[in-house]
Amino acid sequence: MKLSKRIEGVEYSAIRKLTPYVDRAKKDGKKLYELNIGAPDIDVPDIYYDTFQKIKKGPLPYAYAQGISELREATANYYKKRNINFDADDIYITNGASEAILFTFQVIADEGDAVLTTDPFYTNYMTVFEQLGVELNVFKTDPDKGFALPEEKEIEKHITDKTVAILLSNPTNPTGALYSEGEIIRIVNLAKKYDLFIIADEVYREFVYDGNNYKSFGEVGGIEENLILIDSISKRFGACGARIGSVASKNKAFNDGINKLCNCRLAAPTIEQMAAAKLYEIDKSYFEEVNKEYQKRRDVIYEELISIPGVKVKKPKGAFYVMPKLPVDDTEKFAIWMIENFDIDGETLVFAPAKGFFKNKEEGKQMIRLAFILNTDALKKSMKILKEGIKAYVSENE
Amino acid sequence: MKLSKRIEGVEYSAIRKLTPYVDRAKKDGKKLYELNIGAPDIDVPDIYYDTFQKIKKGPLPYAYAQGISELREATANYYKKRNINFDADDIYITNGASEAILFTFQVIADEGDAVLTTDPFYTNYMTVFEQLGVELNVFKTDPDKGFALPEEKEIEKHITDKTVAILLSNPTNPTGALYSEGEIIRIVNLAKKYDLFIIADEVYREFVYDGNNYKSFGEVGGIEENLILIDSISKRFGACGARIGSVASKNKAFNDGINKLCNCRLAAPTIEQMAAAKLYEIDKSYFEEVNKEYQKRRDVIYEELISIPGVKVKKPKGAFYVMPKLPVDDTEKFAIWMIENFDIDGETLVFAPAKGFFKNKEEGKQMIRLAFILNTDALKKSMKILKEGIKAYVSENE
Ligand SMILES: Cc1ncc(COP(=O)(O)O)c(C=O)c1O
Ligand SMILES: Cc1ncc(COP(=O)(O)O)c(C=O)c1O
Repeated sequence: MKLSKRIEGVEYSAIRKLTPYVDRAKKDGKKLYELNIGAPDIDVPDIYYDTFQKIKKGPLPYAYAQGISELREATANYYKKRNINFDADDIYITNGASEAILFTFQVIADEGDAVLTTDPFYTNYMTVFEQLGVELNVFKTDPDKGFALPEEKEIEKHITDKTVAILLSNPTNPTGALYSEGEIIRIVNLAKKYDLFIIADEVYREFVYDGNNYKSFGEVGGIEENLILIDSISKRFGACGARIGSVASKNKAFNDGINKLCNCRLAAPTIEQMAAAKLYEIDKSYFEEVNKEYQKRRDVIYEELISIPGVKVKKPKGAFYVMPKLPVDDTEKFAIWMIENFDIDGETLVFAPAKGFFKNKEEGKQMIRLAFILNTDALKKSMKILKEGIKAYVSENE
Repeated sequence: MKLSKRIEGVEYSAIRKLTPYVDRAKKDGKKLYELNIGAPDIDVPDIYYDTFQKIKKGPLPYAYAQGISELREATANYYKKRNINFDADDIYITNGASEAILFTFQVIADEGDAVLTTDPFYTNYMTVFEQLGVELNVFKTDPDKGFALPEEKEIEKHITDKTVAILLSNPTNPTGALYSEGEIIRIVNLAKKYDLFIIADEVYREFVYDGNNYKSFGEVGGIEENLILIDSISKRFGACGARIGSVASKNKAFNDGINKLCNCRLAAPTIEQMAAAKLYEIDKSYFEEVNKEYQKRRDVIYEELISIPGVKVKKPKGAFYVMPKLPVDDTEKFAIWMIENFDIDGETLVFAPAKGFFKNKEEGKQMIRLAFILNTDALKKSMKILKEGIKAYVSENE
């Protein structure tokens, strides 16, 4: 018996490679600051847990395949307040944004089709493409420009007759870039010109710093047929473990395809959907509070990073990631060395080597991704560990 | 923009076609006995809801991609008590058996590969195969023999060099067939002879009547490399809305493939997993109670069915389905007619036309699938409605 060629083409994410080292270090009693994974430490609002207290016992039937109407209504209301133009009927609830992404590409791309995105990009896009035999094309975003989108002409060069969609996460995992209205419009123009889908992954929508405006693709008119909006409560409400996401579109043929896939897997979890609906009723002040905290963290980690000799970094504007360049040759080796061979008072730092976020693995070799998902004290300590770690590693390898 | 060929090949399930008629009838105030869908009405044990009541507030992180260890341990313990030989490490928790089935075929079958199963079969297998471009081959099971498996030689005829696996649900949706040890061994022999995977979908394992023994594929030695066991809490504990299933195997290469897919979608819902773990600690007497109730229902529906002139049916031995043949030409037309044009005191019956469960749609045209998921009073009323409905329909169409 052999396995499918399909599955042989699917790789583990680069982040996951560190897991055995991390597990071993923990067993040895090392304390780790794990800034390698984007799981925010914020409390899920209590209103979420209230649903659980009030739940009626008895049978627990399948929810409606598209998602329960309370949650779709609540999501639509949240969108309306942000000028994002989707009705409850346009929204399909999924098992996290992860399922929304998989469903989307199942519906729009056959084997051999290509999808265009930024380099670097969220690594799990790649594992979806590997599953489906879809080609990933990229255009570069420049670390020295805060990973901003390049000019329209530059992006256009990478569109071929195989391209079916442009995919963007905004704010961006793994770079923390936030796209301006001008950048958004570049993508809109190209999608119209070449008749492409726009896949807007906006799971970090509420994490925007410095009072900057957020421009959602959902606010832009004239792309109703093109736009597919991916969303999730994972980051927004610290509810990664709920596995509730969504995909929304005004394109009826696309929605019909999504609906087929929703029916095929029967439903998303009923109680989690009920609880998620309550989350979307929350007051705007909740996001302001969270943002204040995350901006503080962003400031701390940025200030610490620029104080480390040889580190190059721009201040991220959104999400909770930053991608500095370090004065080392290969950050994967350095990551393992930090876990195995370095500590300050029994504590060390785990970060994600950046190469896993690049199409050409050579490119990210000197960069790392840090998720600022711990409090400022922990971040200060982590950055001290990074600073001393770099110093020790560099002198050891000279 | 066009959609993928893949998605155009995916069809809606036959059961779903009735939905608009059902919705309209409900709006018109008709009362419907919905025996068309396999959602059991049993209460989820209270212990399940206790987990939700006691849950610690705060952040809700991603669970481990393979599934939380409490649930994998609890599942393995449940298996051990039934002589099913899987350890916690062999088990991967999924979003329902639905995801387990999709993952399994993603791992073992490429486009053009074939999977062999019974005719009729659980219709959602087909939608998975349509998504993956996998061919479905079938061998017939005879309604007059209670849909038992045919002889080994007969099954063998349908194995080609494209066949990668034999897939069985036992007890069977949609027929209620329960396979004996002898039938199981036929499949085991063929899998060994032709080096095939056995996919055993045992989500109805605990629904077995008349004191019959249940033989799981997991009890059979010598097929450790071949066996893939699909499971779920949906039917077993009336917890369809939880979306917790699993796939288990001793085949390390297979498990590695499943693990990749688990990582790709990050995790299954955390709290649902914690609650499901408690379910698996439940006493055997729970299943005995449920079975007693379901056997009573099975007896009622069977006795009522054989009293209807022209109806042909064998007594099902497991699951909660029965598939009688009716004295009408096309049960899909009849189903719609029953919903739209027939009632007794404002009440009517919804059943699943059987053709959707057959590879060759012509074959099931005179059969229906009934799920005995209501109490015996409701079942008696439903069967009275069916009896009178058949009489009226037949005389109207003569
Ligand atoms: C850009 C982006 N999209 C989607 C996801 C998946 O989120 P979910 O937990 O909703 O599946 C993540 C998770 O890290 C992400 O960073
Ligand atoms: C034979 C069979 N397998 C799998 C499933 C899917 O169950 P789950 O709710 O665990 O996805 C069903 C549901 O009806 C079924 O009948």
